[in-house]
Amino acid sequence: MTPLHLGRAAPVPEQPPRSQDPVLTAWAPGPVPEVHPGDDLTLLALEALGHGPELRDGDIVVVTSKIVSKAEGRVVQADDRQAAIDSETVRLVASIPHAHDDGATLIVENRLGMVCAAAGVDASNTAAGTVLLLPVDPDESARALAAGLRDALGLAVGVIITDTLGRAWRNGQTDVAIGAAGVRVFDELAGTTDAQGRPLVATRPCLADELAGAADLVKGKASGRPFAVVRGMGHAVGALDLPGARSIVRSVESDMFRQGHREAYADGYAAGLAARDDAGTAGTDKEQP
Amino acid sequence: MTPLHLGRAAPVPEQPPRSQDPVLTAWAPGPVPEVHPGDDLTLLALEALGHGPELRDGDIVVVTSKIVSKAEGRVVQADDRQAAIDSETVRLVASIPHAHDDGATLIVENRLGMVCAAAGVDASNTAAGTVLLLPVDPDESARALAAGLRDALGLAVGVIITDTLGRAWRNGQTDVAIGAAGVRVFDELAGTTDAQGRPLVATRPCLADELAGAADLVKGKASGRPFAVVRGMGHAVGALDLPGARSIVRSVESDMFRQGHREAYADGYAAGLAARDDAGTAGTDKEQP
Repeated sequence: MTPLHLGRAAPVPEQPPRSQDPVLTAWAPGPVPEVHPGDDLTLLALEALGHGPELRDGDIVVVTSKIVSKAEGRVVQADDRQAAIDSETVRLVASIPHAHDDGATLIVENRLGMVCAAAGVDASNTAAGTVLLLPVDPDESARALAAGLRDALGLAVGVIITDTLGRAWRNGQTDVAIGAAGVRVFDELAGTTDAQGRPLVATRPCLADELAGAADLVKGKASGRPFAVVRGMGHAVGALDLPGARSIVRSVESDMFRQGHREAYADGYAAGLAARDDAGTAGTDKEQP
Repeated sequence: MTPLHLGRAAPVPEQPPRSQDPVLTAWAPGPVPEVHPGDDLTLLALEALGHGPELRDGDIVVVTSKIVSKAEGRVVQADDRQAAIDSETVRLVASIPHAHDDGATLIVENRLGMVCAAAGVDASNTAAGTVLLLPVDPDESARALAAGLRDALGLAVGVIITDTLGRAWRNGQTDVAIGAAGVRVFDELAGTTDAQGRPLVATRPCLADELAGAADLVKGKASGRPFAVVRGMGHAVGALDLPGARSIVRSVESDMFRQGHREAYADGYAAGLAARDDAGTAGTDKEQP
């Protein structure tokens, strides 16, 4: 069987699911024209969304952080790319040499707490000679957009701002939420029970990241459609002061992977050697950690 | 503004997106009755899917691994839970003591290469006194289901089998693909260009994981709806011998987080001390790694 290429523009089903079935619909209206520093993100969104169905209460607007950064003027010259990465970096987490050149992939924690390559600094889909930094405060950007859309439309809509992240143990990338407003970022199952009545305490689905990934499936990466709407998740839409995407970032206390294994081993080895040197100085090998 | 609770059962849009817009629709037909060892997964799927719209070429059927495991008889007695976890574990990656009791969370690599808690052994939504192991070979299970559905329906549909995984640096969990057949698990953008004509070499979106997450948004965790259909991604559907979800698992060579930082540091420290002891035995401190 040869691969099918039916294209992204599949029609909606003529025979809809039965009304009691859970249904999600996502679409990416557009395309959106090039965005410039100072552009009003709410107006951009309203223009893009105007190409699709009218929004409703409970719809979630998902937007690629790149567009938010452009509107916020987070553009720097590309000859400052490493300086830009350094300015966004809080600490080095791990590094691995490239197989194909003398470079290395650096995994860092950036000022938003995200652990990622290049601190989230982006050199694709930007004007030649420039790179883009992430928004200063993506949760605040999301709140401003959600407030603007709620005011303009008179509807309770949620907003998620996305970026594309790699994963520690899985190839490829998925889109995740780096900003959120008016959306419950977690489905809090703690306290609920499974079909056998046993507590589902350990499970805390990250709705915001799953929504970001679903939106990426329709937005794509190169199509000039940075906005998507996800319909059918109205139960996740709420007040603008719900916790934002910053609450998805794992705390230091529960982070078991603060360093790559090579870096942590090297630090441990150095500490072991230092203990040896201390022992050598004292003329004894009784020093222990 | 109080949170809205519009429920999962939102209607499909009366005013559909314009036909040229990328659209994704996902629904979870059911509910599905309790599954028993030896049940035919294709028949179960056909029965569940029969509650929704007729399938079409390019539809992707997403199923929770729990149901696959039940049909394949991967049930063990709960008094053997730790033995079950041990039998599924290849190696310990990291551990962290619980804040609330004397236990610890163990992050391990299981025999499928997945890095996760409890090796993927599942004690929720199972019969009392039992736990579930993951399918023996989820890619093979997916191929069998996809072949069965293609034969029965005469349609080119894809299949993804999902599990719920935590993430190294992000709270909560998302559903990911642990088995896949007839679906391109990655969107291979390498060789394509962005809107400015520059190569998008670094980006390799993991479609299968984003599809798994989108399906989770409609399946939920406790609703008795283990199947979902995602429509509108026909460009990702292809031959049954496309690489499966095993290809998503990162190779040892590119894994920068083979151990938690505490474990790697401890190993390094021990090696440093051993170097000290060697030096002490030799009466010199000149030993270096």
